[in-house]
Amino acid sequence: MTQAPKKIILDCDPGHDDAVAIILAAGNPAIDLLGITTIGGNQTLPKVTHNALTVLTVLGQTSVPVYAGCTRPLVQPVEVAPDIHGDSGMEIHGYQLPEPAIDVVPDVHAVDYIIDTVMNNEPGTITLVPTGPLTNIALAVRKEPRIAERVKEVVLMGGGYHEGNWSAVAEFNIKVDPEAAHIVFNESWPLTMVGLDLTHQALATAEVEKRLVDLDSDIANFVVGLFGFFRQSYQDAQGFDDPPVHDPCTVAYLIDPTVMTTRKVPLDVELRGALTVGMTVADFRSPAPEDCNTQVAVKLDREKFWDLVIDAVKALS
Amino acid sequence: MTQAPKKIILDCDPGHDDAVAIILAAGNPAIDLLGITTIGGNQTLPKVTHNALTVLTVLGQTSVPVYAGCTRPLVQPVEVAPDIHGDSGMEIHGYQLPEPAIDVVPDVHAVDYIIDTVMNNEPGTITLVPTGPLTNIALAVRKEPRIAERVKEVVLMGGGYHEGNWSAVAEFNIKVDPEAAHIVFNESWPLTMVGLDLTHQALATAEVEKRLVDLDSDIANFVVGLFGFFRQSYQDAQGFDDPPVHDPCTVAYLIDPTVMTTRKVPLDVELRGALTVGMTVADFRSPAPEDCNTQVAVKLDREKFWDLVIDAVKALS
Amino acid sequence: MTQAPKKIILDCDPGHDDAVAIILAAGNPAIDLLGITTIGGNQTLPKVTHNALTVLTVLGQTSVPVYAGCTRPLVQPVEVAPDIHGDSGMEIHGYQLPEPAIDVVPDVHAVDYIIDTVMNNEPGTITLVPTGPLTNIALAVRKEPRIAERVKEVVLMGGGYHEGNWSAVAEFNIKVDPEAAHIVFNESWPLTMVGLDLTHQALATAEVEKRLVDLDSDIANFVVGLFGFFRQSYQDAQGFDDPPVHDPCTVAYLIDPTVMTTRKVPLDVELRGALTVGMTVADFRSPAPEDCNTQVAVKLDREKFWDLVIDAVKALS
Amino acid sequence: MTQAPKKIILDCDPGHDDAVAIILAAGNPAIDLLGITTIGGNQTLPKVTHNALTVLTVLGQTSVPVYAGCTRPLVQPVEVAPDIHGDSGMEIHGYQLPEPAIDVVPDVHAVDYIIDTVMNNEPGTITLVPTGPLTNIALAVRKEPRIAERVKEVVLMGGGYHEGNWSAVAEFNIKVDPEAAHIVFNESWPLTMVGLDLTHQALATAEVEKRLVDLDSDIANFVVGLFGFFRQSYQDAQGFDDPPVHDPCTVAYLIDPTVMTTRKVPLDVELRGALTVGMTVADFRSPAPEDCNTQVAVKLDREKFWDLVIDAVKALS
Repeated sequence: MTQAPKKIILDCDPGHDDAVAIILAAGNPAIDLLGITTIGGNQTLPKVTHNALTVLTVLGQTSVPVYAGCTRPLVQPVEVAPDIHGDSGMEIHGYQLPEPAIDVVPDVHAVDYIIDTVMNNEPGTITLVPTGPLTNIALAVRKEPRIAERVKEVVLMGGGYHEGNWSAVAEFNIKVDPEAAHIVFNESWPLTMVGLDLTHQALATAEVEKRLVDLDSDIANFVVGLFGFFRQSYQDAQGFDDPPVHDPCTVAYLIDPTVMTTRKVPLDVELRGALTVGMTVADFRSPAPEDCNTQVAVKLDREKFWDLVIDAVKALS
Repeated sequence: MTQAPKKIILDCDPGHDDAVAIILAAGNPAIDLLGITTIGGNQTLPKVTHNALTVLTVLGQTSVPVYAGCTRPLVQPVEVAPDIHGDSGMEIHGYQLPEPAIDVVPDVHAVDYIIDTVMNNEPGTITLVPTGPLTNIALAVRKEPRIAERVKEVVLMGGGYHEGNWSAVAEFNIKVDPEAAHIVFNESWPLTMVGLDLTHQALATAEVEKRLVDLDSDIANFVVGLFGFFRQSYQDAQGFDDPPVHDPCTVAYLIDPTVMTTRKVPLDVELRGALTVGMTVADFRSPAPEDCNTQVAVKLDREKFWDLVIDAVKALS
Repeated sequence: MTQAPKKIILDCDPGHDDAVAIILAAGNPAIDLLGITTIGGNQTLPKVTHNALTVLTVLGQTSVPVYAGCTRPLVQPVEVAPDIHGDSGMEIHGYQLPEPAIDVVPDVHAVDYIIDTVMNNEPGTITLVPTGPLTNIALAVRKEPRIAERVKEVVLMGGGYHEGNWSAVAEFNIKVDPEAAHIVFNESWPLTMVGLDLTHQALATAEVEKRLVDLDSDIANFVVGLFGFFRQSYQDAQGFDDPPVHDPCTVAYLIDPTVMTTRKVPLDVELRGALTVGMTVADFRSPAPEDCNTQVAVKLDREKFWDLVIDAVKALS
Repeated sequence: MTQAPKKIILDCDPGHDDAVAIILAAGNPAIDLLGITTIGGNQTLPKVTHNALTVLTVLGQTSVPVYAGCTRPLVQPVEVAPDIHGDSGMEIHGYQLPEPAIDVVPDVHAVDYIIDTVMNNEPGTITLVPTGPLTNIALAVRKEPRIAERVKEVVLMGGGYHEGNWSAVAEFNIKVDPEAAHIVFNESWPLTMVGLDLTHQALATAEVEKRLVDLDSDIANFVVGLFGFFRQSYQDAQGFDDPPVHDPCTVAYLIDPTVMTTRKVPLDVELRGALTVGMTVADFRSPAPEDCNTQVAVKLDREKFWDLVIDAVKALS
């Protein structure tokens, strides 16, 4: 790949699959991981921030700066997902997590880091990759509206046009802060929604796990440990056989868009439904208008995806 | 078929596809069409009632009683669909509709006809087949709650778990009277939702039309004329090549359940969404509970379906 | 009074204050109480219907026909008010209620009685007086829309423009069936809302009670018994010293409009609020338009009101 | 007054009445006006910011720093009030506004100024006085949640428990950004809502205007000019004889709480109503609980209020 690597900010709430997204972002040369911002979601802000620092420590990527963001959604009360991610937000099977070797960047809020990075780089060079609730991104664009025009694109994990996991029709990241999602989905930036429709295809099967086990590296063991806990959670809480590894799909798409098919479609977020609050509403009734700036991820090339993940694990080992 | 025919009340708003539903109900020996009730929907109540009488006149089925029902939705303002069904509600190409040879049954409201029929027949013997807005059915069960336990089942055309036509996620029949739909979907009777997910598979293709043309009967010509106008409408208004013939799918299912696959799933109707009002929300996240009394139609056996329609046209000719 | 008495249908859910409304309607020559229809509200339909029959028995007014209506609200689940009206819906202190000497009119639904009465009398002669949830009235006007133009007026107890009792801003009768209220408030008939703003002025004080005690008649003792239980309920549940006797205010207004001041104002019912569902929204921002057909009761002439009640008790004794 | 002056940040959208709030804050020794933050509301952010700078220039208070804030509401689209405040947001009669002699503080967002001021002063010393939409305050407390415990109190102009001006039941500042208001009203800080119930008592009558005219100072003439345009607007748009001068009521309360009566009551903001979105819902049904941290302004001592305004005009002249 002769192109310059894509500069991204990963806005996440690690989280098992967030950890894999960090691995993919740190371990693939097509991505330049400028920084990580954290957001309360899978667990509380202190926990997910701790986990982000831990992941970077495991990966030996301690030069990636981490900025703590918002502790709670805009309007809705805090909701976390211990049934999926455990008490720490990143419980793990058979692997001893180290204490973080680094700390967050002090006195700089994630929201300001996002704004400053976008405003201080050339327009069209910074990609935002949110894989948690969208509170930080929403606050950033309301505080500094000019970032909407300067961001290259937003590629987010969240929502689903035909799938839900936190209600019949809503996904966790969107449902826990629907107002933030409404803000982000209605901005002018190009936005790709990598939702459950796609990520439920990214299952960490036994075969995938075997490939990791065979690598026999510390980082591979870390991922195997994550998948172990994650599988159990998804079996118990949502009736899956294998856990869907949502978040790295976003990074995979940025590395190689052919890892998935996408479809342009107008998107919006329901704020008022009794049954549907937090639903990402896609209007497939007619071809998307020319100026439609939103698209959804539809079909994953599983092999290509897992090859990217395995390659990143290898590269970091 | 040695079984007794199924006694049904067809609650409809003809409407091109409603007309085909009447044909199927009147022309198949597995169905005993007790009566037709009308409801404002595709067009105003006077127009759809006139059309029901016209259809029975064309079919020579003038002994089927017709009862006029509600003129408007419970809460929402009246909304009709002239872009799909034309000014009369049943505009036709190349066929001269006769004046109705019969009139509605005087002084009996559709709601009371439904109640009386259900209460005066053995429990578990009357099937309700609504193919328009659900106002009549909702009023009936609120006026006489005991019908909920006595009705054999409700098989309705309306809604969609992944498809919409009157908004991104809502179908016409449900969206124009969501409160009525909420009432009907939340009653204790067995309910089958034959929604857009299914009926968008029931396309009146050129091949289907040719089969009808080849019959060369008056009723076949009537149907060909209906499909002609309907095709044009669906091309102009919703970008379809061939028109989906929604309503007879309900009757086809009652004649032969193998004409479609179905899936048990909890269903509800969104009343409050800004983007989703009138959406039929299906919760596919886990297997339906034992006592789930609602199911959705999933996949149509197209050939079997059109054979049933053609057979009915032949039988009536 | 040389005017012909006003023909009314009292649609109620007795209920302590409903009982007083019946007394006022039956005991004042300005009112011709054509019939009573019942509606589930303060208690379940069977209970309130039983209570209506009991009240007529106590009053010796057994020729007033009673018709049972709807058992539950249109969309919302059933909600009753045992904390205010007790388990029977009309618990009483120190008075032995008789068994009803009459039964409901069989096989005629309240909704049909309302429709038939309005359609079979001269237009502009029948007044509807709902003092419970508006389900019956809503069903009647949806089943037979022509009654909207034929009814003389609707004078209802319910709602409040600045007061609530079942939420911060909603009153019981409206909140338990807001969809029905929305239907009734948005019809074309003249409508007077006698809401909590007015009825919280109709307190059964010790002085009022003394006047009744002094009458020393069976019916006076009945009313004293009702007020006894009602006072206790309102003290315990809503912190009132004396109980507000809501429902007879409607009848009092029909007997003598000068018993209260009213104000024309556009009214509507909130169906979707998270905090405000069931609120009767009055728009006082500018003078009501010429064609405004709704008004609210503002200020009660207490003395005149209680004189009317006492006079009715006397007249019936 | 021997007490130290109260340190306030005035978060405003001048705006005629905002200008008077600035006069009162700058011209009364009981108030230490630390800074002004601006918010899009009565007009767009650039216009109201310009107006804030202009007012300080007229007053000779050019040492008060001004910080520009958010350009738009969190979720709702931008809405301004040119029918009340004119195209500039502060149109004036018979007075020549100067060009501002100062500029905003560069590179410091209003949200950060609020956060930093609260965090860098002793807890319990900083009072926030919002007189426009609450977007800045909401963003501040979401970005830095600790300010909720450190702010002394929030005294805001907005809402109304029985009055509306931007809908039947909602006031402009709340209705244009209801999500921000919901955030601010549900925080733990002591909050006083000076709503329309109070401010519609603060009418700039002819008598008030005469007192100002008699002062015959430049600042008095400025205020007279503001009232002239404001009176015309309120006559044309809302049918008032005299304009209600909303915003300075907040500052007056801080100077002297006896200028109005207040009542403790739980408050919340409706986000989902069809008719009531943006309503400030006060629950007066029972005495406020001990830990209730919200109160509403009820009755204005008009004389005391206008004396304070006149005194401030004099003090600044």
